[in-house]
This record gives sequence, structure tokens and C-alpha cells, in this order.
Amino acid sequence: MTTPENFQGWVGHDSSAAKGNLRWESFKPKPFQETDIDIKVSHCGVCGTDIHTLRSGWGPTHYPICVGHEIVGHVVRAGESAQTRLQVGDRVGVGAQALSCLRDDCEECSSGMEQHCGKGFVGTYNGKYADGYWSMGGYANYVRVPAHFAIKIPHAVKSADAAPMMCGGITVFAPLKKNGAGPGKRVGIVGLGGLGHFGVLFAKALGCDRVIAISRRRNKEEDARNMGADEYIATSEDEKWEKKHSRSLDLIVSTVSSPDMPLSGYLRLLRTNGQFIQVGAPEDSLPAISAFALIAKGCKVGGSQIGSPKEIEEMLMFAAEKGIKPWIQERGMKQANPTVVDMEDGKARYRYVLVNDDHGDSRL
Amino acid sequence: MTTPENFQGWVGHDSSAAKGNLRWESFKPKPFQETDIDIKVSHCGVCGTDIHTLRSGWGPTHYPICVGHEIVGHVVRAGESAQTRLQVGDRVGVGAQALSCLRDDCEECSSGMEQHCGKGFVGTYNGKYADGYWSMGGYANYVRVPAHFAIKIPHAVKSADAAPMMCGGITVFAPLKKNGAGPGKRVGIVGLGGLGHFGVLFAKALGCDRVIAISRRRNKEEDARNMGADEYIATSEDEKWEKKHSRSLDLIVSTVSSPDMPLSGYLRLLRTNGQFIQVGAPEDSLPAISAFALIAKGCKVGGSQIGSPKEIEEMLMFAAEKGIKPWIQERGMKQANPTVVDMEDGKARYRYVLVNDDHGDSRL
Repeated sequence: MTTPENFQGWVGHDSSAAKGNLRWESFKPKPFQETDIDIKVSHCGVCGTDIHTLRSGWGPTHYPICVGHEIVGHVVRAGESAQTRLQVGDRVGVGAQALSCLRDDCEECSSGMEQHCGKGFVGTYNGKYADGYWSMGGYANYVRVPAHFAIKIPHAVKSADAAPMMCGGITVFAPLKKNGAGPGKRVGIVGLGGLGHFGVLFAKALGCDRVIAISRRRNKEEDARNMGADEYIATSEDEKWEKKHSRSLDLIVSTVSSPDMPLSGYLRLLRTNGQFIQVGAPEDSLPAISAFALIAKGCKVGGSQIGSPKEIEEMLMFAAEKGIKPWIQERGMKQANPTVVDMEDGKARYRYVLVNDDHGDSRL
Repeated sequence: MTTPENFQGWVGHDSSAAKGNLRWESFKPKPFQETDIDIKVSHCGVCGTDIHTLRSGWGPTHYPICVGHEIVGHVVRAGESAQTRLQVGDRVGVGAQALSCLRDDCEECSSGMEQHCGKGFVGTYNGKYADGYWSMGGYANYVRVPAHFAIKIPHAVKSADAAPMMCGGITVFAPLKKNGAGPGKRVGIVGLGGLGHFGVLFAKALGCDRVIAISRRRNKEEDARNMGADEYIATSEDEKWEKKHSRSLDLIVSTVSSPDMPLSGYLRLLRTNGQFIQVGAPEDSLPAISAFALIAKGCKVGGSQIGSPKEIEEMLMFAAEKGIKPWIQERGMKQANPTVVDMEDGKARYRYVLVNDDHGDSRL
């Protein structure tokens, strides 16, 4: 099997694309390198970043663009160097990162932190390769990406479930793991969207003593508890929640970002040496923190960005072992426009996954 | 030997005390408990917190007050329970904390984090004991404190050198140690006052690959280099320092706190997974941080508060082993008033230590 010269996908031409104005079109992929693979896309999750980018929400987007970075499919072509890692027929996932410098003298790339590479980071879409071509994402029939950032999916994990893990899942799994979520620890997850729902699922599966879902309103409580949350805080409805739950959490992963988020309240929830890790959209400054809030309890406020290929692999193995089932809604790839609109309207419960028509769940 | 019914010390009666209006007076110490010791004070460092407290800078101070929490002297009386830990004749130091709840069911006290105890923290001065008595500090001939927070000083460390370690030293030693300062690590110290000078000395002695002193002006460069700094950044004089030193540090310990500190610039200096730990005076909010600055590099901003008795002991052993020599200026205890004024005027190079007249360096 080989791939056509041109790929087809949902293409945005200006910021109106975020309002459901994508067009199914042909586009030329980047020139094939021996380090590349072509993937026949079976599934692609719909991530908040897709909408931000279509809208030029984080600065000017390079149009025309095809978004989507929660991609699953089968390898249909593998360059010679790519074959040391992947073969035609492999079922793989691709997340938000398509390339980094991968040089031995790069502090980040040489130590398994490719996602923090300051020199050669290329996003899976809206990123510029060294040869000048712009990366194109997974709302498409095929994607062409460097093999280093495609990860094999364990047999036990369905493609539709694996897709949203590639960005939404790893974004919360990595900081949970790195900061010690597990037995003996009490963990809070702020925000119950696509990322937050993964936060609850993973924190529970990691064996944390208690998992607390923290949202503004109470309307997602039943879902959160069904996902495994032991407790639920509705910050705009519960009275004195900061006081009531004071000093109760070792780790908080925050999947929301807004200048008016009650950060001081969240910090009150931390125990001594507790940590608050922000993974939510980075367009805003965080509210100013009192130095005293950090000093008195020896707390830390940090950030975390997606995960490395190794961390994604670890997450997928963990998901396979624990039988993690994300809450997803599958939609036909043809439904990309209404799905983008529904996503923007906050209707996802908790992640939309676009499915190409000619794909069932083939786990060859 | 026993202790008089009343102690004598430099007492402040209102906020004018911070301007050198202390009076040498008698005062009644707290009633002696079997867990207490009396210390004949030989040396007491002059800490910034002393001045803040004398001025009621962090909220109303309880006057009359005798400040000073970098205390060294000999035990002259030990209660029965105190004797499991200390004997008359022991040379000991007392830092900023005089008591915590010390209960077995206290998360902090039961795990060697007494300085974060939220239930029973009593400061060495301006703190209220359970029996209603207010703690009095070390600008005095004697202090009475619970033995748990008095630490034996190794023979190799002089009393005058040990005194400023009890608060200034431990405040930077603890976060350096806890956050991995040592071989293979590059560490920055912000601010070159009493705390910052300890930061440079300890970071160097811990074997860090590079130690960078960061101050506003260049006037302390020679001193910093003589303390062991490999490099010096003057943030208000060097052009584009943030860019020039970008991604060069694993850990920054900041001993200053001001709403207009260039926090974003400091964060630029951090490498991937780098940490910025604030230990400086907590009266202000930190400048708002961009979430992106934390996320892109996986960085953390944290705080740290003094150190536990165990950490102080570890610091003193380390200081003995490495021959750490703080840069101090000894003044007679009689000179407390002009010394407070000089401290407030920023003249300390780098810590004043008040010495009681009848004490040489007796290291019995």
C-alpha cells in the first residue's frame, strides 16, 4: 500500500473555521523524508487547542490549516530510518508534537524531555519544519509525521479510546506520575472537561487515596463520581470550600486557566509541601500569588506540557493494564464542522472523537 | 548555676524600636516548664525579621518585646524532660521557632516538618505560648525556650558563626538541600544580603557546578566572587541579562521579595524542570506569573520556610565538615540600638552578630 500524492482533510482558511467553517479539501503533505511515516487516520480526537488554533486564539495561525493532534491510525508507509522504530501495519498514535531537534547535545532531547526542546519543536499542526513546510493534522484521511513521535498502541486499548489520550490524556497523566500521584496521596483535579476527566480516571487508577474533582458548578458531580472521584467541590456554589477542605490535598492538577480562577483558594487546599500543577491553556497570566501562601506550607506552583514519547508509551501501557475507558462520543469524520461547534459550546462529555468512515476498530 | 527570676534584654515598646529606640530592661520570662531550658546567651544575630517585627511591619507586634532569633549560648538550666535532649553546659543554638504542637497525630510534627505545623507554631519572639505568655528573644542575657528547638552546635563551628546560621543560614540551606543543589547542578541566588550570602556559601560548599549571584547592582560583585560565586548578574545594570543567561539554571533561591522584582526574567534563567524557590520576606504578593512560562519548561515556583530542628542539625554538621565561614560583623550587645539602625540602612556585610560582654568564644 502506498499513499496518494495529495491528502484530504478538513481545512480552515481563516478564523471563521473555528465556527464550523472547515472545508474538505486536498492538500499537499510535507515532502516525505526517510525518517517519516504515513498514517491512514482512523480516529482523531477533538482537542481545545484545535479550536484555539483555528480561531488564531494564541497568535496568528498559518492558514490553510488542517488541525487535529489526537491521531490514531495504521502505518501505511515507513521511510528507511523510520523502520528501525515502526513498520507498515503498526497501529500508532500521534499527539501534539511532531518533531524536536533530537540532537545528542540537546539537554532536553537527550534526556527524554523532547516536549521541552527549545530548538526544534514542531507541533503536529501549525508547526514549521526545517524544509519550510507547515505541519498538517489529523482531521484528514492521512497524516505524514516523523516516526519518532508516533507511538505503538497496545492491543488492549481501542483506537477510539487511545486517540484522546494522545494529547488530553498525556497532559494530565505526565504531571500526575511525575509528582507522585499514587497510594498515600490525595489528589485534586481542577476542571472537568476533556483533560480533567482524564485526570480523575488516571488519578483513581494510579491508586491515590482520595481523588477530588473541583469544578465551578455542581452539574458534573454525578459524572465525576462515576469516573471515580471520591469527592466533589463546586467552587461557585459551595460555601467556604477553601476553609472546609483546607490542607487536604498533596497535589492539584489544574486543567483550566483563567485570570479569575480562585488560585489562592486552591493553594489553601494543599497540605505541607503540596504542589499545584497548571496544564490548562496558557494564554493568560495566573492570578498573583502571595509569597506567604507558598512559604508557610512549602508549596509549589508549576506547569507541565504534554509528555514525551516515552511517557506516552508508559501511559498507554498503564491504560491497557488498568483498562482505562475514557468517556468519549464518536462522530463520523464528515461531522467535523458541527463537532467543532459543539466542542466550542462546551457540549463534549467528555471528548469527541472523529472516526473515518472506512474504519471500524481494526486492531491488527 | 541557675537563672535569675527576671531576665534582662533590649526591649521595644512601640514601633519606634525599629529606629534604635530599644531600652535595656528587666522582664519576666515565661514560667519554666519541665520541657524548657534556660540559655545564657553569648551571641545573637541580627535578622531582618527582627526589624520588621519591631516596626509592626507584618501586622501588630505584641509590645513590650525583646527580639532576636539567631541565638547561641550555653544551657544553664534544663527541665527534667528537657534533659533527654540537652544537659547543662551544652552549647546550643535557637532559631526562629520555639515550639510547635509536637503531637504524634500532627502530619507536620510527626514527619520532621515542625516548621510547618499549623496548630502549635510559636515564634522565638512575638509568639504566644499555650499558657498565655509571649515569647521573648535573644537580644538578652538569657532566653527560656522549649528544648526541642535548641540544637547542639558542633565543636568545629564558632558561636559567632553559628548564630546567624540559626535563621539566615537554615532559610537558604533547607531549600538548597531539598531541591537537589549539588554536583551537576547550576544554582542562582537572588539577593546578596544576610540570607543570600549564606546561599552562595552553601551552594558552593554543596558542590554545585556553578553558583550565580543575582543582585540589582554590581557593587557586591567582588564580595560575591570571594564567597564562591562563579558569576554575577546585576539585573538593573546588565543589558539583556534574561536573554544572555536564559535556560542556564536548575534552581534559583530568591532571598528578596518585592512586588516589582523581575520574576519573569528570573524564570527565563531556569532550565527545563527548573525551580524557583522564594524564601524572602512574605509581606507582598509575587508579580503575576504567565502560566506559559511554567508550562513551556515544566518549571515550578515554590516557597520554603526556615527549617526543622533536624535540618538545622544537618546544616551545622555540614558547616563543621566544610568549614563554612559566614561573613559577619561582631558588635557588643550594648550596641544593639546603633546595630539595628545600621541593619535597617543596609550596611550589614553580611550579618551583624551581637556578643554579650562576658562571653568569649567558649566552646565547652
